[in-house]
Amino acid sequence: MNIYGQHVTRLIEEFSRLPGIGGKSAQRLAFYIIHLPEERAEALAGSILSARRNVRYCATCCALTDADPCSICANVKRDTATIMVVEDPRDMAAYERTGEYSGLYHVLHGAISPMHGVGPNDLTIAALLKRLQEQPTEEVIIATNPNVEGEATALYIAKILKETGIKVTRIAHGVPVGGDLEFVDEVTLSRALEGRREIN
Amino acid sequence: MNIYGQHVTRLIEEFSRLPGIGGKSAQRLAFYIIHLPEERAEALAGSILSARRNVRYCATCCALTDADPCSICANVKRDTATIMVVEDPRDMAAYERTGEYSGLYHVLHGAISPMHGVGPNDLTIAALLKRLQEQPTEEVIIATNPNVEGEATALYIAKILKETGIKVTRIAHGVPVGGDLEFVDEVTLSRALEGRREIN
Repeated sequence: MNIYGQHVTRLIEEFSRLPGIGGKSAQRLAFYIIHLPEERAEALAGSILSARRNVRYCATCCALTDADPCSICANVKRDTATIMVVEDPRDMAAYERTGEYSGLYHVLHGAISPMHGVGPNDLTIAALLKRLQEQPTEEVIIATNPNVEGEATALYIAKILKETGIKVTRIAHGVPVGGDLEFVDEVTLSRALEGRREIN
Repeated sequence: MNIYGQHVTRLIEEFSRLPGIGGKSAQRLAFYIIHLPEERAEALAGSILSARRNVRYCATCCALTDADPCSICANVKRDTATIMVVEDPRDMAAYERTGEYSGLYHVLHGAISPMHGVGPNDLTIAALLKRLQEQPTEEVIIATNPNVEGEATALYIAKILKETGIKVTRIAHGVPVGGDLEFVDEVTLSRALEGRREIN
């Protein structure tokens, strides 16, 4: 279908290759782009190139960063004896938004998933082990996702850290705050019961 | 929140300015981009710029095109005595996909909408009138959208074409093929009743 001319058709094709963008959305985005002021279109194209070309990872925690070490690893006020292991920089951002965590992070950039061909060597686990050897650490908090891959990854890391003697913890499973018990699945309800705590 | 570094943060901001893309989708797209092969990111950025910079409209029908006149206006097999007026190049593409229409088009690039500050002079109505003066035309089919703006635009065009003596028609309103009567709104059901035809 070249009814829109080659340039617009190519843009629609490029957009429809992005995740979560179907044919109709790609078309709508392309029509939006051709009606933008030229400097806005240039800003979008430029930010795609500069993000792709300048993306850097912190050599210590593997987070996305502009400078190495990243602002969290470089912050002397953080508790360097605690490391929270997350799958993705977005999970790290989510915990930073809570304002309740003052330790460091370690970003795995994925989870173990034999289904998708992702093994331990595709993650930053070796970098974590090296880091634990070099830096005195009291606790590793595993905050991988509460799904099959995340749990498998948590168990794998807990197992290889066992011999180091470092305390390894997993974030709690339970009912989400503000949720309605009626709509919570059985596994979560069971985990919430197991993890019950005394009210003081 | 600059936890992802300035380049990724800027890309997320650019994406969230696009229509239909919220904060979470923008984040997901930005993370997809930084993991793309560099040539794929360059292809996307390049197609945004080339679509924005090279977009051209057919001087006759105002459709998007690479060459002027566009492939439909230049096609000697098309019925040049019939012009279908549509709001948008996408509507033109939709009718082309039916394969049932062999006349020409005229793209208004919008519909009259006082709410959004769009008047007749913001559309290509003057170009349509000029075209009708220069080219012998038997019928103008108005295929604007079946909503308030589209109907207002259809009535407006029908009114100014009245004195030209050219036959002006409107595409039929009725129940969509494959639909379920139960779920069709009352206005559409009434229009479908009004427009009923004898079965031969």
